[in-house]
Amino acid sequence: MLLHLSTWIEIEDYLKRSKTVVVPIGSNEQHGPTGLLGTDWLCPEIIAHEAQKSADILVAPTFNIGMAQHHLGFPGTIALRPSTFMAAIGDWCRSLGLYGFEKIYFLNGHGGNVATIEAAFSELYAEATYAGRRRGFACKLKNWWELKGVLSLANRQFPTGHGSHATPSEIAVTQWAYPDAIKSANYAPQIAPTGPIREALDFRARYADGRMGSDPGQATPEKGGELVAAAVAGLIEEVAAFGAEETPA
Amino acid sequence: MLLHLSTWIEIEDYLKRSKTVVVPIGSNEQHGPTGLLGTDWLCPEIIAHEAQKSADILVAPTFNIGMAQHHLGFPGTIALRPSTFMAAIGDWCRSLGLYGFEKIYFLNGHGGNVATIEAAFSELYAEATYAGRRRGFACKLKNWWELKGVLSLANRQFPTGHGSHATPSEIAVTQWAYPDAIKSANYAPQIAPTGPIREALDFRARYADGRMGSDPGQATPEKGGELVAAAVAGLIEEVAAFGAEETPA
Amino acid sequence: MLLHLSTWIEIEDYLKRSKTVVVPIGSNEQHGPTGLLGTDWLCPEIIAHEAQKSADILVAPTFNIGMAQHHLGFPGTIALRPSTFMAAIGDWCRSLGLYGFEKIYFLNGHGGNVATIEAAFSELYAEATYAGRRRGFACKLKNWWELKGVLSLANRQFPTGHGSHATPSEIAVTQWAYPDAIKSANYAPQIAPTGPIREALDFRARYADGRMGSDPGQATPEKGGELVAAAVAGLIEEVAAFGAEETPA
Amino acid sequence: MLLHLSTWIEIEDYLKRSKTVVVPIGSNEQHGPTGLLGTDWLCPEIIAHEAQKSADILVAPTFNIGMAQHHLGFPGTIALRPSTFMAAIGDWCRSLGLYGFEKIYFLNGHGGNVATIEAAFSELYAEATYAGRRRGFACKLKNWWELKGVLSLANRQFPTGHGSHATPSEIAVTQWAYPDAIKSANYAPQIAPTGPIREALDFRARYADGRMGSDPGQATPEKGGELVAAAVAGLIEEVAAFGAEETPA
Amino acid sequence: MLLHLSTWIEIEDYLKRSKTVVVPIGSNEQHGPTGLLGTDWLCPEIIAHEAQKSADILVAPTFNIGMAQHHLGFPGTIALRPSTFMAAIGDWCRSLGLYGFEKIYFLNGHGGNVATIEAAFSELYAEATYAGRRRGFACKLKNWWELKGVLSLANRQFPTGHGSHATPSEIAVTQWAYPDAIKSANYAPQIAPTGPIREALDFRARYADGRMGSDPGQATPEKGGELVAAAVAGLIEEVAAFGAEETPA
Amino acid sequence: MLLHLSTWIEIEDYLKRSKTVVVPIGSNEQHGPTGLLGTDWLCPEIIAHEAQKSADILVAPTFNIGMAQHHLGFPGTIALRPSTFMAAIGDWCRSLGLYGFEKIYFLNGHGGNVATIEAAFSELYAEATYAGRRRGFACKLKNWWELKGVLSLANRQFPTGHGSHATPSEIAVTQWAYPDAIKSANYAPQIAPTGPIREALDFRARYADGRMGSDPGQATPEKGGELVAAAVAGLIEEVAAFGAEETPA
Repeated sequence: MLLHLSTWIEIEDYLKRSKTVVVPIGSNEQHGPTGLLGTDWLCPEIIAHEAQKSADILVAPTFNIGMAQHHLGFPGTIALRPSTFMAAIGDWCRSLGLYGFEKIYFLNGHGGNVATIEAAFSELYAEATYAGRRRGFACKLKNWWELKGVLSLANRQFPTGHGSHATPSEIAVTQWAYPDAIKSANYAPQIAPTGPIREALDFRARYADGRMGSDPGQATPEKGGELVAAAVAGLIEEVAAFGAEETPA
Repeated sequence: MLLHLSTWIEIEDYLKRSKTVVVPIGSNEQHGPTGLLGTDWLCPEIIAHEAQKSADILVAPTFNIGMAQHHLGFPGTIALRPSTFMAAIGDWCRSLGLYGFEKIYFLNGHGGNVATIEAAFSELYAEATYAGRRRGFACKLKNWWELKGVLSLANRQFPTGHGSHATPSEIAVTQWAYPDAIKSANYAPQIAPTGPIREALDFRARYADGRMGSDPGQATPEKGGELVAAAVAGLIEEVAAFGAEETPA
Repeated sequence: MLLHLSTWIEIEDYLKRSKTVVVPIGSNEQHGPTGLLGTDWLCPEIIAHEAQKSADILVAPTFNIGMAQHHLGFPGTIALRPSTFMAAIGDWCRSLGLYGFEKIYFLNGHGGNVATIEAAFSELYAEATYAGRRRGFACKLKNWWELKGVLSLANRQFPTGHGSHATPSEIAVTQWAYPDAIKSANYAPQIAPTGPIREALDFRARYADGRMGSDPGQATPEKGGELVAAAVAGLIEEVAAFGAEETPA
Repeated sequence: MLLHLSTWIEIEDYLKRSKTVVVPIGSNEQHGPTGLLGTDWLCPEIIAHEAQKSADILVAPTFNIGMAQHHLGFPGTIALRPSTFMAAIGDWCRSLGLYGFEKIYFLNGHGGNVATIEAAFSELYAEATYAGRRRGFACKLKNWWELKGVLSLANRQFPTGHGSHATPSEIAVTQWAYPDAIKSANYAPQIAPTGPIREALDFRARYADGRMGSDPGQATPEKGGELVAAAVAGLIEEVAAFGAEETPA
Repeated sequence: MLLHLSTWIEIEDYLKRSKTVVVPIGSNEQHGPTGLLGTDWLCPEIIAHEAQKSADILVAPTFNIGMAQHHLGFPGTIALRPSTFMAAIGDWCRSLGLYGFEKIYFLNGHGGNVATIEAAFSELYAEATYAGRRRGFACKLKNWWELKGVLSLANRQFPTGHGSHATPSEIAVTQWAYPDAIKSANYAPQIAPTGPIREALDFRARYADGRMGSDPGQATPEKGGELVAAAVAGLIEEVAAFGAEETPA
Repeated sequence: MLLHLSTWIEIEDYLKRSKTVVVPIGSNEQHGPTGLLGTDWLCPEIIAHEAQKSADILVAPTFNIGMAQHHLGFPGTIALRPSTFMAAIGDWCRSLGLYGFEKIYFLNGHGGNVATIEAAFSELYAEATYAGRRRGFACKLKNWWELKGVLSLANRQFPTGHGSHATPSEIAVTQWAYPDAIKSANYAPQIAPTGPIREALDFRARYADGRMGSDPGQATPEKGGELVAAAVAGLIEEVAAFGAEETPA
């Protein structure tokens, strides 16, 4: 069930049977010479939309811009500062919590988001604690590649050159979903270098075409489909477990 | 050209021929018993995506959550506080301006966004002025129903009961684009009441099913298609004019 | 009744008969070669102070600095960033609401303030909603030239060259109230150009002497007196209506 | 010279002969059973306006709302939180500094403002330092009762019962300027109690009628006139000295 | 009793017998050619730690970074902007208030902190007032040199050349506590100049070696020990009085 | 070399031979029935202070309050909200960067700090990028238990019951450094439960005595000394490597 294609009355009904909502969250940022700028928000959106076809899961609109300051040296990247990102995540959660969601599950597509999203959760909890009241909802963050079975599959599919940015696994997922937007390029070197992540100009100087440790040339739509299938199964299982989790009195 | 389905190299190329980008922006909020929660961000997205098929326009990802505090009494609404919304619009623009966009055009789908978006533009300009430098880009906001020819068409299509929230015209646009998500209901009264907009609980007390002044029952996919066609033409013309506008030295 | 010339005990008494307060709000910014820098806060102050002489209206101190970032290229302009302006409006309203005002009416003298003031109201409402409580007061914004009868009078007085900044109507109002501060100049051109409003340097480049579309040379103290009289009547009527408005339970 | 009754061209001219501006700043807050709510912003305004009649001093609009959180238990008080107050003072100074003021002199009427105004100055300096540039202007704060000769005069006028809030000296100043707004009451006790300043409810519990240590019944318009005369002389001298102060290279 | 060397259970027990906590607060900033960078946080820490050896006083960890923007021209200075400092003081107090402290006593070692700390207290009080609730705790600030008997002792020890920054009294206190870190230098001039405090570059231009009005060469560990003894006695007395203070209902 | 026991001139000299500074950072929070409230800031302070005895490392004052919102249900915990924590880390780094530090190394003692510290680094980088300039320094975060050789040693020392909060390893480190502050208790159960971390009331309900998965009864000062020795070696090596790292042009 897609929240944005539902009416408020349908959500009111959904809340009678579940207090859990899934928010796909990612980033819009350079993904090397062939990766789509939307890769990191498209992947969790693709997986969550696919999952709600076969399970009674409510999927919120996609939170499509995240913490991508280090990619700002490349055109097309759009980044929120961590403070802005935290404020926005906060208001999403405050809204969802107002009318009764108690479990807010963020399916994340961008490693660079993790720190800020976790900080945003803590900010929300601290706000309630300092005001002397219960928050009323719990938040959970999961990277899609950490869903059960996904990383092991990716390791089998891409034993070398998976890397950490513009990876063949994430590009394969977008190839499966957007076959008309498959791009190609000569990668030089075939596997990109690795190193630390600092500010944007530093990043561009270290990683000339934007990739980190990856060889995206190994991606295929078929491998993407396999990854989506594994992620969907993992997501459905985990969302059910999160929804069933008891809150101590 | 959709930014999120492009690579950074394609954006770098696009910037050689144009410094203008279109950002669909809206809100995810209740739209009465039959309107989709996503209506206000779907409409500008539908129009912008349609427009880039026939013109060399770059469309950014959709900014899908806006200033909808007054709708928070209805499940499914997600709202940013104005201060959060301003910060986020600011970071979108700062990002786009970094690598060379000089004209940032927001195609808006929610009247409640207008004040905050305009305030966000002023905040961006003031930031540059106080720092003693040029901002480097100009921002423009346009509601899709104010594009040339659209409102007059809507008035012909819906001479009564157009109203101001959950209008038949916006619902028609989503019906055209998402025919599988058309909903129906008995409206009572057929045309909803009107009045002021205040806080969320006040809104829900005044407008029991969420509509303001509208009879959405008049919407049809066909009318939606006509509206989209008119809006696409208006958008292409206006984006070209904005892109051609000279900045005084 | 002027709040700042009253004691707290007199306000306590006033609250027994009315929950409404009027706040004149404007901006201190360049108004062309002959307009006073204070024009935009003087006009609503003049009108509100005049109105309380003949009606039981409580007038708060004047909020004299607003959103004037685009005028900062001209000496004497003082501007709050929208975020600062919102915070300040918020604290004014939080204060007035604490001891019982339920209707806060802003009589505005600067078009550039409108977006931010409206955003500030929404911020106040959202704050209460997110905290799970009622705000307790309603806010209303009115530009003095939109009070009943004023704009039509101005159109009769100034059929051409009214323009949108440093208008003859606002300058006439200050001439009526501050006859010792009437200035004169040769306007070239007689009617100033029009165009978009962007950042401060852009504004100064487009509008060399600060006017937009106006010919202030038509202003006279007599016309100003007529405008004040019309505005006073409109204000008294509208404040009464706002005060009488019921809040839905 | 009053900034708000001047044109931008007159300010441009003034800047050729002086880089100094005086900002009257105060608070709108309860002042006991007979003190005007505006006392703390009226006093510096009265003194500064009087001073500019006999000296070439530029006086900005009055900053009329300050840090009065402890008085919020009494109707009519309007208070900015320190964070809001700092942001607003900051934008006033950033504006004035943009077009060339190098010395910004705040003539203050409220002891409770001092800490926040000083903090605001430091915030402005730190902002420039962290950005690796010079601030370009210096700020100075002076309470009007600390101008040369004023406190000694007040001590002679009111050897007992001067107190620290709703003092006979400040009330005398407003009586001199606003003789039509002189109020009277039976004070019980004649001299109000003293003690610490904490939050608003605590303040109201400690100081039943709002006074602290004062007997305002001693105020007369004549004494007010003497105080204004002394303050005007002190202000003119001190502003000249501040304007003449050299900034080390 | 040192909070950081206690367990939460020991604090729970302490709260049964006292609701008062002492927070040493200072700054890490240049102190001339011989003063330690930590002087301003070491002094209150030394005194408070010494005091808790002979009285049942709970001492929190030391707040060691404060408002030192004017010293940022000298290496080793670490400064919080006032807005940051206020936020941090706020969260310390909100934390301590949550589980029952009602009196939070800041023993301060840096004059430059005073304005911001006082503003932070007001921010905390205003937050509660605007939320319509009691704050629940009272805050008090005291500079260690203003504890009973300390300044008079310092005046006897250093009749000339005490000055206001890098004073012989504060340096003597650190010499007593950290005899291995005593430094020496030739002071030129022996007594440093005085003047106003503005931004960092201005400060460094006025005060070449960082001192203001002082001759730190007069400091000895013995004098430091005398000062600590006086301050400890003053602190114990004053904390007891603050703890015993009644809050009006 | 301890920064707070140095003079500014000594730091100026140090900067001629190194651009690297180490900041111990932690949290003041409950650590079960026997762990010190200061454990998480004492551990990195102990290790860093020990390291600078045998290597030319500059150690800043300890950042002793961090992100501990989940522990606020236990007395003695002091927590910064993530937004406050980020602002403060930011100002520390801005200060250190002003006079030439290019490598800022945070030695962390609290897992709950990691997300916010990383977010703070990104905020600092984004600030510079959006202002169109280089940040000028790089930040690095390391938890002390992740220094080379430490975790493997802890695993050998505590093969079971190490857990994740109030661990025997961190308590052993404080026992080694503060042998007079060793506490004892009967643990029930011997090994504490594990589970998720949410808001403070939830945490206290799940973890009755504050421990998570740990049996702190295994800690001894001797084991602490071994851990410190391993950490010191790891720290010296890693700080040297960080200092030697080249920044790409």
